[in-house]
Amino acid sequence: MNVAVIGASGYTGLELIKILVTHPSFKITYIANSTGEIKVQDLHPSLKNVIDMDVEKVDANDVAKNCDLAFLALPHKTSMSFAKELLALNVKVVDLSADYRLELEAYEEHYCAHEDKENIPNSVYGLPEFYKNEIANSNLVANPGCYPTASLLALLPFVEYIKDDNPVFIDAKSGLSGAGKKLSEINTFCHINENTHAYNPFKHRHMPEIEEKVRLVKNTNLSINFVPHLIPVTRGMLVSVFATLKDENTDVKAILEDFYKDSEFVRVRNNPVDIKSTAGTNYCDIFVEKNGNALFINSSIDNLLRGASSQAVANANIMCGLQEGAGIPKIAYVP
Amino acid sequence: MNVAVIGASGYTGLELIKILVTHPSFKITYIANSTGEIKVQDLHPSLKNVIDMDVEKVDANDVAKNCDLAFLALPHKTSMSFAKELLALNVKVVDLSADYRLELEAYEEHYCAHEDKENIPNSVYGLPEFYKNEIANSNLVANPGCYPTASLLALLPFVEYIKDDNPVFIDAKSGLSGAGKKLSEINTFCHINENTHAYNPFKHRHMPEIEEKVRLVKNTNLSINFVPHLIPVTRGMLVSVFATLKDENTDVKAILEDFYKDSEFVRVRNNPVDIKSTAGTNYCDIFVEKNGNALFINSSIDNLLRGASSQAVANANIMCGLQEGAGIPKIAYVP
Amino acid sequence: MNVAVIGASGYTGLELIKILVTHPSFKITYIANSTGEIKVQDLHPSLKNVIDMDVEKVDANDVAKNCDLAFLALPHKTSMSFAKELLALNVKVVDLSADYRLELEAYEEHYCAHEDKENIPNSVYGLPEFYKNEIANSNLVANPGCYPTASLLALLPFVEYIKDDNPVFIDAKSGLSGAGKKLSEINTFCHINENTHAYNPFKHRHMPEIEEKVRLVKNTNLSINFVPHLIPVTRGMLVSVFATLKDENTDVKAILEDFYKDSEFVRVRNNPVDIKSTAGTNYCDIFVEKNGNALFINSSIDNLLRGASSQAVANANIMCGLQEGAGIPKIAYVP
Amino acid sequence: MNVAVIGASGYTGLELIKILVTHPSFKITYIANSTGEIKVQDLHPSLKNVIDMDVEKVDANDVAKNCDLAFLALPHKTSMSFAKELLALNVKVVDLSADYRLELEAYEEHYCAHEDKENIPNSVYGLPEFYKNEIANSNLVANPGCYPTASLLALLPFVEYIKDDNPVFIDAKSGLSGAGKKLSEINTFCHINENTHAYNPFKHRHMPEIEEKVRLVKNTNLSINFVPHLIPVTRGMLVSVFATLKDENTDVKAILEDFYKDSEFVRVRNNPVDIKSTAGTNYCDIFVEKNGNALFINSSIDNLLRGASSQAVANANIMCGLQEGAGIPKIAYVP
Repeated sequence: MNVAVIGASGYTGLELIKILVTHPSFKITYIANSTGEIKVQDLHPSLKNVIDMDVEKVDANDVAKNCDLAFLALPHKTSMSFAKELLALNVKVVDLSADYRLELEAYEEHYCAHEDKENIPNSVYGLPEFYKNEIANSNLVANPGCYPTASLLALLPFVEYIKDDNPVFIDAKSGLSGAGKKLSEINTFCHINENTHAYNPFKHRHMPEIEEKVRLVKNTNLSINFVPHLIPVTRGMLVSVFATLKDENTDVKAILEDFYKDSEFVRVRNNPVDIKSTAGTNYCDIFVEKNGNALFINSSIDNLLRGASSQAVANANIMCGLQEGAGIPKIAYVP
Repeated sequence: MNVAVIGASGYTGLELIKILVTHPSFKITYIANSTGEIKVQDLHPSLKNVIDMDVEKVDANDVAKNCDLAFLALPHKTSMSFAKELLALNVKVVDLSADYRLELEAYEEHYCAHEDKENIPNSVYGLPEFYKNEIANSNLVANPGCYPTASLLALLPFVEYIKDDNPVFIDAKSGLSGAGKKLSEINTFCHINENTHAYNPFKHRHMPEIEEKVRLVKNTNLSINFVPHLIPVTRGMLVSVFATLKDENTDVKAILEDFYKDSEFVRVRNNPVDIKSTAGTNYCDIFVEKNGNALFINSSIDNLLRGASSQAVANANIMCGLQEGAGIPKIAYVP
Repeated sequence: MNVAVIGASGYTGLELIKILVTHPSFKITYIANSTGEIKVQDLHPSLKNVIDMDVEKVDANDVAKNCDLAFLALPHKTSMSFAKELLALNVKVVDLSADYRLELEAYEEHYCAHEDKENIPNSVYGLPEFYKNEIANSNLVANPGCYPTASLLALLPFVEYIKDDNPVFIDAKSGLSGAGKKLSEINTFCHINENTHAYNPFKHRHMPEIEEKVRLVKNTNLSINFVPHLIPVTRGMLVSVFATLKDENTDVKAILEDFYKDSEFVRVRNNPVDIKSTAGTNYCDIFVEKNGNALFINSSIDNLLRGASSQAVANANIMCGLQEGAGIPKIAYVP
Repeated sequence: MNVAVIGASGYTGLELIKILVTHPSFKITYIANSTGEIKVQDLHPSLKNVIDMDVEKVDANDVAKNCDLAFLALPHKTSMSFAKELLALNVKVVDLSADYRLELEAYEEHYCAHEDKENIPNSVYGLPEFYKNEIANSNLVANPGCYPTASLLALLPFVEYIKDDNPVFIDAKSGLSGAGKKLSEINTFCHINENTHAYNPFKHRHMPEIEEKVRLVKNTNLSINFVPHLIPVTRGMLVSVFATLKDENTDVKAILEDFYKDSEFVRVRNNPVDIKSTAGTNYCDIFVEKNGNALFINSSIDNLLRGASSQAVANANIMCGLQEGAGIPKIAYVP
């Protein structure tokens, strides 16, 4: 299978390349960004002697000529117009942007007017634990956001056990790579080193994504109240979900273990999870604890991998009939 | 006023010395740790040319001979036996340990048997915003824990507005200095750098301290569900309190501003608070936001200062009839 | 004495304000940046409740009307044109830029054409350990660069003992605040966290500043070979000077101690110096070691304080007949 | 080939396991530490679902029964007595300790009495760029120290071009994982975060290792003056070598490129090297610059990989007739 990485300049583009260069079945035959005219090993100097390819100025026909599947690591809006072209040319698409993650109305409320409405019904939300069959039969997978990935994997096993008239709170902590490469004072070392703070509390665009998927997967309306934070780490994400149990005698550990007993990439933990044990991998680690009817579900992922690029490759594996785990990183960066 | 710093080796002892060397009314006349036989500037090399004093092996009679007031920066249990002696010798005590923070029963449940039961009724909880008069009339102030300080300053203004049959969740993030100087794998750079994790969720000993003070100050029983985290910063603490409003039309910002309108050391903020703006100071910064009936109260303190040493000196100021803010640091370490 | 801080938006402007708000003899009567129309506590939110002043759009006549002395925390080139105006209006100037640090020819080679040639001969290089009398009699002090401050304080005591036909190497490590607030990929957390690298080796503009001052102070031409590095800390600077002793029996420790025996702000150390012990202070800590004729001189400063703002205030103190140490910070940020 | 990892608890033991679990030709058949009685995935929780093996209490006969080659990630002294046993049982040994790195006299001067003098002459210094043939024919490889690896790869290409009567200075910066897992104040986050300092200047035990190898490889006595530093990163090492060129017209870039033109794991760079581009890999990146006769050679490695575990596996590959690069990590942890 020949694949393309579109949007090679950013962190998720780099992570896609890092996974794909050693993938047993995918071969990168096309790499592009918005300008081209550079070697990928010059764009990302750490790749010197690892890969030697030109970065092209992105062109849909060139993708179609060279590739069976394309990973789109592009900004919102850019992505949908390009996906539309590729799908018309029979190229499978894994879209890492938000463009196909939400139902139309929600998308247009939280992002902008949609430019590829026709393909929305054909897109599948790429959370393999819940949509594996749909992914296998789809040509367009909307790769979930990093916060929703970690939040939904923690929350979904417990939806039927929690009081849906109490607010659910999610306190999420993300490393700086989640903010992308765009320059801003927020991203500077002097701002965030020795610092930590929330941003957009109750207003982040991943909040409706979480609410919608809970409703679609579990047919339950929950009030999701989401507060993201930046913490001074480069990669990694830690999520605390706080909810109220209907019954304080619920065996929450057993529910979690049973739910994920067949999942290759979710590890149920006996202790609070940490960022480092998942950094560099596609794993989501989850821990659960209760105190009376107060419930704490605690998940950790690598925001660039399970929260973006390795989940994207896992989705591509499923779309192409490969094993979900083919070529997917499992060994953490510890120490 | 002559004062003693007992327990000079740890971080809070160092911070006490740093504040007291430039204090306009207190003079350090006695510094001690468990061993003595060292100069304070050799114990803490950054103090070279700042102070030149011997560190003594601690002795209550020497304290009483030299000082009007003693700061005890000692471990639990050690502190109460020593406080008892000092009080008997008419030395005022500000105790930075947990030994007088709780009612007897709670203390013995969460710590150990108490060795100075007689003085518990005479002790005052040293949160000046709530106990200023009592502090002014006391010889024994129990300096609050860092987590309770940040949590209570956030929560107390809202107790009457929140549903007390819903759990209150507190997600707290602390820098590593909060764990003290004791060597453990948790405290190593390789463990916590590029990492973050919860510890003792719903089981930390500061949880009953918060519950008890809410009950005593507000005559309300709340279910406090406390999850502390370590984040890779040296100093600073960020607290998220999540609760359910009785009435979603409550003007939470107005409540907060009104509550603290006369407080010298609480700053109400228009944006989520960050660690750096309070690091190095006695300030507690607070921000509040709601989403329907979901309430988010967000506070930041320097765990070693407002969470320990500068609050201790503010308490001492009040006990000695000085201005609360005398000699108290207000200028943050930013950048 | 009324003083102005011009260039209040940057890190050194902030540090000037932080020092001056508690200075016993200076009063800030004017704060400006290039735009004005903001309160200083909104420009630097950590200053809320610490200071309440308008930031003006900078104007020389307003400075002259309100102030006896101005601190210029401005970019190169901007600074000299403004200094010229202020001097003509009889305002004393401490210039934190490079504009008056070098002799004309060197300045124009390494920076740009000079726009205030007349005042160059009247300017004094503000390294108090070497130019105290000249500073006392000057209206224009060129505050040294951070790298030259740390390098010269280490090197100058040893110039006559080292072989001047061997290259002198300086390996310097700076925190990110040294790069200023300007956005660039270099300054992002994701770039420099868990990273370290040299930049502009043998080509940094502080290299000729060091060479020139060695020549002027010691009448000796040394080949200075300077390699600066960025390390993942916010503030602080560590310098290693490597040189060859003429005589391997030189008692280097004694030379250093004797040289600085009367210096208030240089501390000779018995162990390799660290960044934290000087962070937050005006101290320069120095350690020296040899191995045969190989000499290692090791200094540490806070790049924003001794390397900029606190040295500037010390210079202003001297210019105004005050004690050099008036209001100058001595207590480090440890831990 | 069946291999053993002895000393599985430390960082280098963990890194060995991480490399070997995906190695195409080696199979881990034995893992041991000093206590046993634990699963490797419990010892290193990040390995959950990656490997499932018991950690044994180390026993030489068990190793010999199960393995063709053993990696010893043990402390000095422990290692040599164990290596001796294994060699007698015909097990090939790659020793990551210092025990066989030095000639006998130097070892005993800098470490302790040697307990396996007989095998010293049969050991080979495992720097593949210089000893590949000897490694291929050896049963005992002494894996170089991290500092010597980075220093020698930088210095050796230039030995004949530098003045050997001038001191050579090496300023080396190491991440904290280089100090191992042993608890000490130095290793705590509060000590080294926002800090940097030299340690053991001119006295570190890697200094004679560098001098000896320069003499053995190049038949030249150089005065190596080595100053190691700790910087606040977890992994990675940056080395600056400063020397004096005999002839300032030497084309240093050409020398470097020519020297390493066939080296799979040395990358010559056009810009100063950084830590992140080699972190996670076996690469050594090198950059060179001059200023007159002043020479700056700048190298970067991952201290745990090229400085220990991946170099150990590369040595094992060569000893076993495999490609040097088989299973060796090449993809950096960037960002």
